Amino acid sequence: MSRMRVKTDTNASAENFRIQLADVEDFVRGAALLGAGGGGDPYIGRLMLERELSRGATLDIVSLDELLDDKLVVSVCVMGAPTVMIEKVPSVLALENALRRLEETLGRRADTLIPLEIGGINSTVPLVLGARMGLPVVNADGMGRAFPELQMVTFGIYGADISPLVVTNERGESVTIKSLSNKTGEHLARSATAQMGGAAHVALYPMTGAQTKRTAVRNTLAVALEMGRAIGHARMRGHRPEEALFDALARLPEPRIGRILFRGKIVDVRRTTSGGFNRGEVLIERSPTDSLRIEFQNENLAAYRNSVPIALTPDIITIIDDDTAEPITAETLKFGQRVQVVGISVPRMMRTPEALRVVGPRAFHIDLDYQPFETISAPERPASNSKAR
Amino acid sequence: MSRMRVKTDTNASAENFRIQLADVEDFVRGAALLGAGGGGDPYIGRLMLERELSRGATLDIVSLDELLDDKLVVSVCVMGAPTVMIEKVPSVLALENALRRLEETLGRRADTLIPLEIGGINSTVPLVLGARMGLPVVNADGMGRAFPELQMVTFGIYGADISPLVVTNERGESVTIKSLSNKTGEHLARSATAQMGGAAHVALYPMTGAQTKRTAVRNTLAVALEMGRAIGHARMRGHRPEEALFDALARLPEPRIGRILFRGKIVDVRRTTSGGFNRGEVLIERSPTDSLRIEFQNENLAAYRNSVPIALTPDIITIIDDDTAEPITAETLKFGQRVQVVGISVPRMMRTPEALRVVGPRAFHIDLDYQPFETISAPERPASNSKAR
Repeated sequence: MSRMRVKTDTNASAENFRIQLADVEDFVRGAALLGAGGGGDPYIGRLMLERELSRGATLDIVSLDELLDDKLVVSVCVMGAPTVMIEKVPSVLALENALRRLEETLGRRADTLIPLEIGGINSTVPLVLGARMGLPVVNADGMGRAFPELQMVTFGIYGADISPLVVTNERGESVTIKSLSNKTGEHLARSATAQMGGAAHVALYPMTGAQTKRTAVRNTLAVALEMGRAIGHARMRGHRPEEALFDALARLPEPRIGRILFRGKIVDVRRTTSGGFNRGEVLIERSPTDSLRIEFQNENLAAYRNSVPIALTPDIITIIDDDTAEPITAETLKFGQRVQVVGISVPRMMRTPEALRVVGPRAFHIDLDYQPFETISAPERPASNSKAR
Repeated sequence: MSRMRVKTDTNASAENFRIQLADVEDFVRGAALLGAGGGGDPYIGRLMLERELSRGATLDIVSLDELLDDKLVVSVCVMGAPTVMIEKVPSVLALENALRRLEETLGRRADTLIPLEIGGINSTVPLVLGARMGLPVVNADGMGRAFPELQMVTFGIYGADISPLVVTNERGESVTIKSLSNKTGEHLARSATAQMGGAAHVALYPMTGAQTKRTAVRNTLAVALEMGRAIGHARMRGHRPEEALFDALARLPEPRIGRILFRGKIVDVRRTTSGGFNRGEVLIERSPTDSLRIEFQNENLAAYRNSVPIALTPDIITIIDDDTAEPITAETLKFGQRVQVVGISVPRMMRTPEALRVVGPRAFHIDLDYQPFETISAPERPASNSKAR
C-alpha cells in the first residue's frame, strides 16, 4: 500500500486514493484475479476506464470510514452472461440512464457510487461512471470477489434492499423493479436482461452511508490495485509474480491466504450460455492420474482434485496463465492452455453463517458443506521447471 | 340498444350508460363471445365485477365522443396464459397498484380507464377497477375483440405508445417499463409476467383523450352487453340465440356480419402453455369426411374446413356450446363437446392495411393473406335437428 499512502498523505485515511490512467492496467488485473474467473472481460473494462481518464477526468476513491451516514450510495453494474458481453459492449450512457431513472424513483441524487463486486468489468463500471459524472466511488464492494447473482452480496446479506433497481439497454429503454426480496429482484432483472439481448446495465442497492458502512466489504478497490500491481511489478523485475502476490495478500490490513492449488494443462472445457449465465466446467491435467476439475457459473465455484474438493465458494478460485500470471476469465478458457490455479481466502464477513447461506456451496446446488480452502488443500510446491519471469 | 337509450336519455349520447349488477352476466357473455376464445376465464371476471357492484359501487361508461381532449386515459389488464390465470386469480389491489405506479411515473392521476381488449376477463378488469376507484370507463377498447399480445391494439396501430407501462403482482412487487417500441414493451412485460409466476397485472397505454378518440375501437362495451343480452333473452324466450345474435349484430351503428361457420363435435384438442401463452389447435368433426380445424394462441386465429381457410384473424372466430350458445374459451375446450363455430366481422378500423400488419395472419406466422371471412366462408344451414331453446 506504500504508493497509495504517499499519494494520499493529505487525506485523513490511507484508504482514500485516486486511480490514475497509469493505474488502470494494474487495477483491472487485480480485479480479475479477485473475480474468480468471472465479472466479465477485464479488457473491456480497462478500455472504458482508460477512455474516461484520458479525457482528464479525476476519480476519487473514498474510504468507507469517511462516508457520511446520510449520503445516498448506489451500486451500478452490468448484468448478463460474460459470453454475451464480449459481443455486446456495455454503454456508459445506458449506465448513466440507469442511475438517473433510479434517482427519479427515489426523488434524490446519488452522492457516491459503490461497486457491486470485484471482477473484470463490474469493479470498473462504477469507476467509469464516477469519472464521467464526477462522483466519488467508495473503496469497498458487496462481495470482495465476483458472484453470478445480484442477491449474492454482503449489502443484502447484512440487511440492505436491492430495490428499487433499474435495468437499461443502450437504446434508452428501462425497466424499474420494486421487489420484496433481493432474490426476486435478481429474477426480474435477469429476465429483463435476457429480453434486452442477454446483457444490460443496472443501478441497484440504494443505501444510506450508514447502511453501506454496516454491509460493504471494505478496502477492496485498494486490494485489487495492490494485487494487480504486485503481479505487474514482479513480472517487470523478473521475480515470480505468484509469490509477490501471496506476500502482498499476507500484508493486507485484514491478511489473506493465497496459494497455488494446482498446475497443469487445460484438457477439456464445457461451457453453455443458459438462463443468462455462462455455465460449465474445466478439466486441468497435470499427469494422466492427477487432474483438477473446476465448476463455474460465470465464476469458478468449486475445485476438485481427483474428485476430492479442495476449494469451495466463497473462497476465490482463479485460473492464471502459467507463464505471465495473468488471470483468465471463465469465458476465455481454452483447450491446451498451461495454467496455475490460485486459491485466495475471502474476508471474515464472507465466511459467516449468514453469508454462507447466500454464497456458500449449497446456494449453487453443490451438495457440500463449506470448508475454508486452506484447511482442505495442500500448498502446491513450485514446479521444478519454474523459471523466473 | 333500446334499453341503453332509455337509461341514458339524460345524457348527450346514447353511448353513455351504466353497468348494473343485473347486467354483468350478459356483459361477460357478450365479451367472451367477441373475445374469440381468449381473454381469460369469463367466470372470474364476472365474480370480480359482481363483488364490486354488489357493494353499491356505480360504474359509468362514457362515450368516446364526450371524452375531453386533455383527459388522461389509461388501460389496465391482466397478462399471462389463461391456463395459468384459472389457478392464479387476478387481484384488484395489484391492478390498483399498477395504476398508482404508472401515475407516479407520469406525475399525474388518471381520469378515465379504457379496456385493452374485449374478452372474458380483460373487458371486465377495467370495470372492476373503475367501480372500486370511482373512475369512469370509456365505451371503447383497443381491439374490438381479444388478441394475445399487448402491441396488438388499435391504440398502438394508430400511433399511441404502450410505455411507460407497469407490471405488478399480488405481493406488491412492480416492474415499470419504458420502451421505445410497443413490441419491446410487450416482450419486457411478458418476461416480467413469466417471472411473476405466469400471470400479472398491467397498467399501460397512457393516452390523452384526443389520442384515445383517434385510436380506440368505439362503442365496444355497449356491443358486448347487447350481444350477451341478445343471446340471454332469446334463450329465456325459447328463440334461437344464434339468430338473435346475428340480428343484433346487423342492427349495430356500424353493422357487423355474424354467421355459423360449422357445427360438430370436438374430437381433438392439443394445447401447450409455452412462452406465456396458451397455444394449440382444436379439431371439430361433423362427419368422417367433414371437419374444421382451429388454430389458437390464447385466441382463435384461423379456421380451416377440410384444410381450406374459411376465417382468419382479425375476424372473430368463436366456439359456442351447441345447446346454450354460451361461448367456450380456448383453455376450456374439451373432447366430446358439441359446438357451433361462429364467425363475426370486425370493425373497419381493424381491417386496414396498418391493422393487418399487426393483427393479420402473418403477424401470427400464418402464411396466408387476410380475406374477410364473409367472402371465403359459406353460411351454414341450420341443422335439421336444431330445436328451439
